[in-house]
Amino acid sequence: MLALTLDAASGATLRADVSAPARTRGESLVRMRCAGVCDTDLQLVRGYMNYRGTLGHEFVGDVLDADDPAWVGRRVVADINAGCGQCDDCRLRDGHHCAHRTVLGIAGRHGAIAEQLVVPERCLVAVPDGVADDAAVFAEPLAAALHVLDALGATRDRVVVLGDGKLGLLIALALLAEARGVLVLGHHVAKLELAAAAGADVALATDIADGDARSDAVVEATGTSAGLARALRLARPRGTVVLKTTVASRYDVDLAPVVVNEVNLVGSRCGSMVRAVAALSDQRVDPRPLIAARYPLSHATQALSHAGTRGVLKVLIENLGNDRS
Amino acid sequence: MLALTLDAASGATLRADVSAPARTRGESLVRMRCAGVCDTDLQLVRGYMNYRGTLGHEFVGDVLDADDPAWVGRRVVADINAGCGQCDDCRLRDGHHCAHRTVLGIAGRHGAIAEQLVVPERCLVAVPDGVADDAAVFAEPLAAALHVLDALGATRDRVVVLGDGKLGLLIALALLAEARGVLVLGHHVAKLELAAAAGADVALATDIADGDARSDAVVEATGTSAGLARALRLARPRGTVVLKTTVASRYDVDLAPVVVNEVNLVGSRCGSMVRAVAALSDQRVDPRPLIAARYPLSHATQALSHAGTRGVLKVLIENLGNDRS
Repeated sequence: MLALTLDAASGATLRADVSAPARTRGESLVRMRCAGVCDTDLQLVRGYMNYRGTLGHEFVGDVLDADDPAWVGRRVVADINAGCGQCDDCRLRDGHHCAHRTVLGIAGRHGAIAEQLVVPERCLVAVPDGVADDAAVFAEPLAAALHVLDALGATRDRVVVLGDGKLGLLIALALLAEARGVLVLGHHVAKLELAAAAGADVALATDIADGDARSDAVVEATGTSAGLARALRLARPRGTVVLKTTVASRYDVDLAPVVVNEVNLVGSRCGSMVRAVAALSDQRVDPRPLIAARYPLSHATQALSHAGTRGVLKVLIENLGNDRS
Repeated sequence: MLALTLDAASGATLRADVSAPARTRGESLVRMRCAGVCDTDLQLVRGYMNYRGTLGHEFVGDVLDADDPAWVGRRVVADINAGCGQCDDCRLRDGHHCAHRTVLGIAGRHGAIAEQLVVPERCLVAVPDGVADDAAVFAEPLAAALHVLDALGATRDRVVVLGDGKLGLLIALALLAEARGVLVLGHHVAKLELAAAAGADVALATDIADGDARSDAVVEATGTSAGLARALRLARPRGTVVLKTTVASRYDVDLAPVVVNEVNLVGSRCGSMVRAVAALSDQRVDPRPLIAARYPLSHATQALSHAGTRGVLKVLIENLGNDRS
């Protein structure tokens, strides 16, 4: 089958000779309908996590086979974290921090930019009919965006989101869906307009003084040292800065404000897919304005290249069915 | 009077010609009995905060004059944060984050390494007779050490303290006083023995693998990038790292673990002087094993130099009364 694979020798390559995955007990076999390219995919190509295998962790697809026949034929998304199912983190919490987890297309498990993939049956979340493929494919990043709410304190301050890339914009949409006030600071008028259209306050980051944007709750979604430094300046004393990007580079930043202002800097990663699908199904979030381009799976390397172009929002890859080799 | 002053031209200098401070309404005039040298003083000398004036914020002294005559003659310590008294932070909380605060010997207010000093009357805390001067002088850093408890989560995990300098050791003593289990990781056998004598588990930082020291609660008290990086490795997923030192240098550190493990990195600064004095009075903490040397005020520059020597614990400066110029 076709799959966009990453290996040490060739980098990211579309291969037509990849064996279709075989599911084992507890797992489901899924035919990919649509996949999204995430900045994490681009980082993996640059060496992050030393990942080797099929890329992709944002997808919607149809279940071809599963232990439970009720799943077969259903349209699904999936939690990308596949925990061991045995440890406390898996039994008592969401398993997102299971020490033995695999992560779809990121760690120890082939990803979704392929004709077919295998995911644990317990990770599947059904997609209601009213949610289009090109909205459902955002379920994973939307879950992560909604998870920001779990990191914010009890404050009802307007949340400041630093960054108007696809992550920052999706976080803004997610917060608005939960009736939080949002101010997005970015560098791109057209992108800021997307957030404004959804109800956010927006401003060019260079146009607003720190003193006019202070908040108990700031989300750093630029992935830069400068962004983090500004987030720390914008946080009120004893406020919270949510760090949302696993940049491959190191931060070089003065953390003295963390101590002096007793700021809470908290990392936030993956969220609940059930919550994300509910938000899509209730039409509280429509992420489709973030779509920049669509490619057939046969053009996945071009899609990856396009997604890596500075300033491009979400690039989708569709499995049209006539791509099969 | 004698005072250890910092100015741009001469650096830290003991001057004999400093005018005795005059108290204004709401303030108290205090005769210093004993003062401590803190690493922050050494940082101020290196340029931190651009501070100019009398150094010192750790002290115990006698009230010479105050609006309320009940204070006169009492032995006191004081909250070093002098808030405006009007803002929400001052009215509703402790004023430690008042935007208009002065901070004794650190920002906008002459410090305690002098024969006399002035502090707001509302900042005074009386010292019970049973607490010796050389214990009471630790009230301010002990308050900061006890404040770590406010930053820790609800976990009952043994707290890992990184660093066996005077800050790390005092934090260990403070946590032990609150019946928390403590593991101190350091590089100095003799200092680790001080913590062990108080009941802490201790180990050379180089002798223990990360996997054997994981905790929901880690306190970074080394002030180094390497220390912070290790603290982030030692924190369990969704655990807390308390950042305790305002190092003048920048941290250069990979914050990806903050995001991947959803760690809560929280700054912690000053604490409650009342709580610190209570812990001293109840003899739950005896900080005096941390005393490395005592100097008369007339030798304050030597004291500062000694305190700046690598590895030296607490240096005290005593106002013997016969120093007066």
